Amino acid sequence: MNRREALQVAGSVLAGSALSAELEGAQKPVVTRKTIAMLLYPQFTALDLVGPHHVLSALEGYKVELLWKTTDPVVSDLGLTIKPTMSLKDCPEDLAVLFVPGGTTGTLKMMEDEEVLSFLKARGEKSEFVTSVCTGALVLGAAGLLRGYKATTHWGAIDLLKPLGATPVKERVVQDRNRFTGGGVTAGIDFGLTLAAKLKGEEYAKWVQLVMEYAPAPPFKSGTPDDAGAALTKMTEAMFVPFTKAAASAAEKAKSRW
Amino acid sequence: MNRREALQVAGSVLAGSALSAELEGAQKPVVTRKTIAMLLYPQFTALDLVGPHHVLSALEGYKVELLWKTTDPVVSDLGLTIKPTMSLKDCPEDLAVLFVPGGTTGTLKMMEDEEVLSFLKARGEKSEFVTSVCTGALVLGAAGLLRGYKATTHWGAIDLLKPLGATPVKERVVQDRNRFTGGGVTAGIDFGLTLAAKLKGEEYAKWVQLVMEYAPAPPFKSGTPDDAGAALTKMTEAMFVPFTKAAASAAEKAKSRW
Repeated sequence: MNRREALQVAGSVLAGSALSAELEGAQKPVVTRKTIAMLLYPQFTALDLVGPHHVLSALEGYKVELLWKTTDPVVSDLGLTIKPTMSLKDCPEDLAVLFVPGGTTGTLKMMEDEEVLSFLKARGEKSEFVTSVCTGALVLGAAGLLRGYKATTHWGAIDLLKPLGATPVKERVVQDRNRFTGGGVTAGIDFGLTLAAKLKGEEYAKWVQLVMEYAPAPPFKSGTPDDAGAALTKMTEAMFVPFTKAAASAAEKAKSRW
Repeated sequence: MNRREALQVAGSVLAGSALSAELEGAQKPVVTRKTIAMLLYPQFTALDLVGPHHVLSALEGYKVELLWKTTDPVVSDLGLTIKPTMSLKDCPEDLAVLFVPGGTTGTLKMMEDEEVLSFLKARGEKSEFVTSVCTGALVLGAAGLLRGYKATTHWGAIDLLKPLGATPVKERVVQDRNRFTGGGVTAGIDFGLTLAAKLKGEEYAKWVQLVMEYAPAPPFKSGTPDDAGAALTKMTEAMFVPFTKAAASAAEKAKSRW
């Protein structure tokens, strides 16, 4: 029995246990596994995706697919080469979850990629949940999927949400109806657990949290501009300028397509 | 400029800035990049590795290699297919960091894999830092590399450290001389930042933390047995029994090889 099987067996145990009294829909037998579709793309940020992938892969009744235009391997911004499990054209029409991770240069390209934007728009209109972590929100936004919704993204990109028709909210995970967006990179774990609770109930999500020992203890307090202080923040913002400028321009172009 | 280049440029900026007054060795020009070697293996837990990989890939003066017996893709326990960047035989002899991620069935195999254990022993004796996250500590332990050291691992595997000659410590990240071990799965991020501070100074690690927006906000408090409570913990421990039994047996066999 590998880890995925063990997790799913334990999930079934949990679903049938006294613990799951509050579990939404626990009484309905699961007939088919619903699809959670996570987009990959060249230069995406792997940790944006691997955090929630770990959580969502543990959910009994769901299967996770990693999507790209082809099933050829995709290289992340930090050099991880990951193989998609399914091409965009083979993706089912009705998804439980549509998910987009962030990045920098690769994300800018996705904001102007007609094939990807059309795919996201078509699936996003029918998906039960439309979600992102980090600057993945800019890609959802470019596809027109955040218009009229509250959303969040990486702190360095938060000002780019408004031009995409969203209402920016500086929180770790933002839920507005069926849109779930997470903050920068590491927010993917908090996002994943929040979504897991929505899909399988809070008790189930707490069990996943225990299995992944998610009791974070950062050695330093420097994860937000307020905590990091002015000097580090200023330097980091300066580093982001080429990205934020290009993203603002891509957002303008995206709007002309809606 | 991709994200890695941007991070490394910013790292150089930081290294030369007033902020880096305390930065160890900031005055020495970096001539060659030191190698951080991260082991991959079939059925490893991807998040154990991708958390610290994100942090360590940002360190100017270092390069990260993903190692396996061959450079053929390796499939993680939850179905992520990742390609190694280097085979074990091509790995440099002198490493800055040797790192082993955890898993379950795959980890048990590594605890008895002569080729991998010999590799770890040889490199571990010369590496500046010998490190693991989650049950990766059991593989280091099987290679004899934790004998006489304080160490930690996933909460469900902590009792397996003593048979491997280590002194178990229930902390998020444990440092004993040049051994750095992290707790279960998500501890990889805390481990990565702790090691980053050791390699490049605290200010540098804080900058990486800001870029990855590591200000965790778990939606629930259930990441440890104490927080999760007796019912969830008991069920999870029951799920782990086949693993812990097999690991105890593998530990006994490992000792006969030392």
